[in-house]
Amino acid sequence: MKLTTLCYLEKDGCYLMLHRTKKEHDVNHDKWIGVGGKFEEGESPEDCALREVKEETGLTMTSYRLRAVITFVSLPWESEHMYLFTCDSFTGDLIPCNEGDLTWLPKEELLTKNLWEGDKIFLRLLDTRDSFFTLKLVYDGDTLKEAILDGREKLM
Amino acid sequence: MKLTTLCYLEKDGCYLMLHRTKKEHDVNHDKWIGVGGKFEEGESPEDCALREVKEETGLTMTSYRLRAVITFVSLPWESEHMYLFTCDSFTGDLIPCNEGDLTWLPKEELLTKNLWEGDKIFLRLLDTRDSFFTLKLVYDGDTLKEAILDGREKLM
Repeated sequence: MKLTTLCYLEKDGCYLMLHRTKKEHDVNHDKWIGVGGKFEEGESPEDCALREVKEETGLTMTSYRLRAVITFVSLPWESEHMYLFTCDSFTGDLIPCNEGDLTWLPKEELLTKNLWEGDKIFLRLLDTRDSFFTLKLVYDGDTLKEAILDGREKLM
Repeated sequence: MKLTTLCYLEKDGCYLMLHRTKKEHDVNHDKWIGVGGKFEEGESPEDCALREVKEETGLTMTSYRLRAVITFVSLPWESEHMYLFTCDSFTGDLIPCNEGDLTWLPKEELLTKNLWEGDKIFLRLLDTRDSFFTLKLVYDGDTLKEAILDGREKLM
């Protein structure tokens, strides 16, 4: 299984979003997502999140919180466990990212962009729920087939 | 990285503990631990916990909660991410486990048993903290060298 982190940095009612336009053969091509990436050996979720945000944005998170674990299943591909963070304080200056364009996007504009269906679900949960949650998302290609919250509640 | 679950089932002030006595060449030999095991492809943390508890104990968890994610690092071995659950309600009858002896152990006797040093830390946290936490444990052989709570607080 793949193990990854995804971070939403917040500032003035905006999230720092990556518009994935630059990589070829990118499963996320043209999608808007947060920043993050794959674990390296021996990293904790926080180690990975700090390193990936620094590499992709030039920013160092100084106040951040693990909010959820998302399990993505999309047969026949390997499934993925993604640790989801939000961050409300950081230092440094934004650098260009080689995976896409980094943009501070007002939260109310998020749903007008090209997002994965499952991302809309956890973005809404980040807004409405304070406690830690787990979410299992089962895709068939680009189509979301199942979303299960905390191992028991079917959201669709 | 290895991905696993560990569950502590609770009843009448006791935890269901597995005294690992039966497997040869078991890194946990003679240790007392909870029940759980490795993820299968496509499982969420809850899917894995439910299956492993059922397989190892015969019990079906009906009320359980994800309490923490533990990162184990012990070079040169592959590191491990372990989802830690507690469970306060279940159905079914206990069956013999082929990995060791299952025993309902009063919580106050836990620290008198042969436990990993890091397990003592997260067992104490399960008792004293209600909110979700992460813990990174770095071992050198059997010796715990580092314990970091929530990515920032050094516990030793």
